[in-house]
Amino acid sequence: MDLKPTKPLSGFIELLPAQQRCFDYCARRMQNVLRDCGYSRLDLPAIERAEVLTDKDNWDEIETQIFLFQKGDTKMGLRYDGTVGLSRFVAGHLTDLNFPFYTYQFARNYRGERPQRGRYREFWQLDIDILGIQNLSLNYDAEIVSTLMKMYESISDIVGRVKAKIGNRRFWNAMFAYLNLTDDQARDAFVLIDKRDKITDFYEGLVETVGENAAKEIDAVFTNGYRSFVGKNAELDAAIAEMDKFMKLLDAMGVKNAEIDVSIMRGHSYYTGIVFEFFSIDYPDLPAVGGGGRYENLASKFSKTKIVGVGASIGVSRLLVALMEAGKIDLSRFETSVDVAVLVMGDDNLAYAMRALNTLRAAGIPSVAYLDTDKKFKNQIEYADKIGAKFAAIIGETEVTEQKIALKNMTTGVQESLSIDDAIKTIKGM
Amino acid sequence: MDLKPTKPLSGFIELLPAQQRCFDYCARRMQNVLRDCGYSRLDLPAIERAEVLTDKDNWDEIETQIFLFQKGDTKMGLRYDGTVGLSRFVAGHLTDLNFPFYTYQFARNYRGERPQRGRYREFWQLDIDILGIQNLSLNYDAEIVSTLMKMYESISDIVGRVKAKIGNRRFWNAMFAYLNLTDDQARDAFVLIDKRDKITDFYEGLVETVGENAAKEIDAVFTNGYRSFVGKNAELDAAIAEMDKFMKLLDAMGVKNAEIDVSIMRGHSYYTGIVFEFFSIDYPDLPAVGGGGRYENLASKFSKTKIVGVGASIGVSRLLVALMEAGKIDLSRFETSVDVAVLVMGDDNLAYAMRALNTLRAAGIPSVAYLDTDKKFKNQIEYADKIGAKFAAIIGETEVTEQKIALKNMTTGVQESLSIDDAIKTIKGM
Repeated sequence: MDLKPTKPLSGFIELLPAQQRCFDYCARRMQNVLRDCGYSRLDLPAIERAEVLTDKDNWDEIETQIFLFQKGDTKMGLRYDGTVGLSRFVAGHLTDLNFPFYTYQFARNYRGERPQRGRYREFWQLDIDILGIQNLSLNYDAEIVSTLMKMYESISDIVGRVKAKIGNRRFWNAMFAYLNLTDDQARDAFVLIDKRDKITDFYEGLVETVGENAAKEIDAVFTNGYRSFVGKNAELDAAIAEMDKFMKLLDAMGVKNAEIDVSIMRGHSYYTGIVFEFFSIDYPDLPAVGGGGRYENLASKFSKTKIVGVGASIGVSRLLVALMEAGKIDLSRFETSVDVAVLVMGDDNLAYAMRALNTLRAAGIPSVAYLDTDKKFKNQIEYADKIGAKFAAIIGETEVTEQKIALKNMTTGVQESLSIDDAIKTIKGM
Repeated sequence: MDLKPTKPLSGFIELLPAQQRCFDYCARRMQNVLRDCGYSRLDLPAIERAEVLTDKDNWDEIETQIFLFQKGDTKMGLRYDGTVGLSRFVAGHLTDLNFPFYTYQFARNYRGERPQRGRYREFWQLDIDILGIQNLSLNYDAEIVSTLMKMYESISDIVGRVKAKIGNRRFWNAMFAYLNLTDDQARDAFVLIDKRDKITDFYEGLVETVGENAAKEIDAVFTNGYRSFVGKNAELDAAIAEMDKFMKLLDAMGVKNAEIDVSIMRGHSYYTGIVFEFFSIDYPDLPAVGGGGRYENLASKFSKTKIVGVGASIGVSRLLVALMEAGKIDLSRFETSVDVAVLVMGDDNLAYAMRALNTLRAAGIPSVAYLDTDKKFKNQIEYADKIGAKFAAIIGETEVTEQKIALKNMTTGVQESLSIDDAIKTIKGM
């Protein structure tokens, strides 16, 4: 019989235990920040009705990008981000929730597109949102950026430092209106500005799209600075003032490493105000490691109540797996999760060994036992070594008689005969 | 425009924040036990190739029970348990892993079947396994049961007490051979024994299936006890001795509330030895809250290496959601995750308020801010009350001038003007 493939489908991630421990460490640290910042976790279904998933404005591609399938009469599909489910859930629970609602999701999302390097078809993402009814002050946008920066700082020992770049959709909307661009021109200019740092013919593209006069003005935003448009009209002034106020708020919140970059646009059409992206300082080749922004009327498809908010997401798999694959993460501290391997020399000594094992575990010392008790000492100590145990707790006839354990430090090789309590002290003293 | 439905698809679970906090508390407690017991987490894809998913022996139903779909030329589907992916992964990483390999998964699984009460189409499950190459002693079966009992104990404040029932597939295989049953008879008898406690015509069913003589013998296992078959033949003796040894091992490991119940069978065909199920003591109406057993040659579809093991699973969603729906879980301690709501009286006081908020959060005190600073005090304090904050930290002009915060105990109503450091002491002193 032919053996079946052992590799996962392409675009799907499988981590080895040490990598997984590193991933889990980062996920836990970031979620601890969210807990201290008072965000409530939601765990929404990975599967939604197709009509719920495929109704995002201006994103025609999405139907080919999601996993859709049918069960009975129902068309359904896998979620591709946290926003759709959140909109639906909040609209259905307006009276069960308190607003402003600080919330986050940590969940797997799915993309059906052909996988490319660094693009996965299944990935963990943190989605962080603050939602309000009708209104929500700009302060919350700063709160979200501040929280994300704290989250990145909490794992800076693993992923290095991160900076925030701040843009403003309102600025460009005001600018395109000021330049009398048509909707089509505005859309094309939007795309050009979004990828300005990736293309060499930015200006030529602009001229082709919006004509020479408008192109000059748009280019001036980058060459002379966005503040050079102060005084042109009320809309532009308001957008510029909003950016300035936002930077002051970030400063008040203690956020370092944040700067205005008006070329930051974000792809989603639902953003309406401040937008932001996060970039690695230490690994500048990485694409954005997170981002988000302000949206108005999030759940208009689900409710007549106007739900406004500000949201952000961190592609946790994308960030960590990219750095792991590039060899940028030192996994040595994650090589083992075990402090002690209990080695049992014969079944006669098992009952006592189990008591010792239980005592170690109850003391919060991660411990496993090698329970093929008929195996030679050599095989057993090899196991302790291979799994990276810091200590081997060897239990034979002598130890049972004396009610002790032979505790071998696997690094120094020193072995001592100790009571279980003294062994715990020695292990914790490490 | 018609509004879209806000309810999730039937069979999918959505918890409100307090329920989710309770769920997360239980998931964390159980995983802490697994960490102390040295099990490494694996996080395997939710999507597998169809050929990987649909190849479980003797489980013809499964093709109708799983979510299958196609993307490009590839047929794939959603995992329905942790075993298939684990087999594939381990077979593909024999040289990357150390055996015995203590591992667990905490993941969502999917069932495509029509949802019934208490049966979900998407649910979180903990899968715990110890895998070995070629051989693994019976001691590991006891280790798994011991670990599961510790996990249940870690959440007994939420779900009550749990007991273990132990069966042995080997006993029945020996019994059916001793009775000269055909394969068909053995399969039918297996099913009858498995549902013995749910049917009234157990004996009549047996007679019809295996004839009167064999039925009498099988029934005698329950009326006279399995030990009444000691001395019939070597196979039966070995199976009975195995059960007796197993109970002694559990005792040595400090496991209370475990008993032999030879009617425990487990549905999966891959079990070959000791099997076990866990039942609620305090909520006897609940179906089994977990179970597992010994299997030989787990990954024969993926590898020529013989991988043996013992595994168990806990249906975390099933257990917790069942108890929540029955009103058996007191959620009052999970109603809030916030200790402090910072209330800001006007944007002029925002910078100072943000500093206070940051200091509280950095001190590990979960805190949120109400940042619509133009809202009246009445609205702001109402928010603090609604979200269940233990304290409101009110910050107005006076507080900024005096570099203090007005800390209001939301339970007693007492309000004090305190420095941030003293406020932290008061809050932590609670």
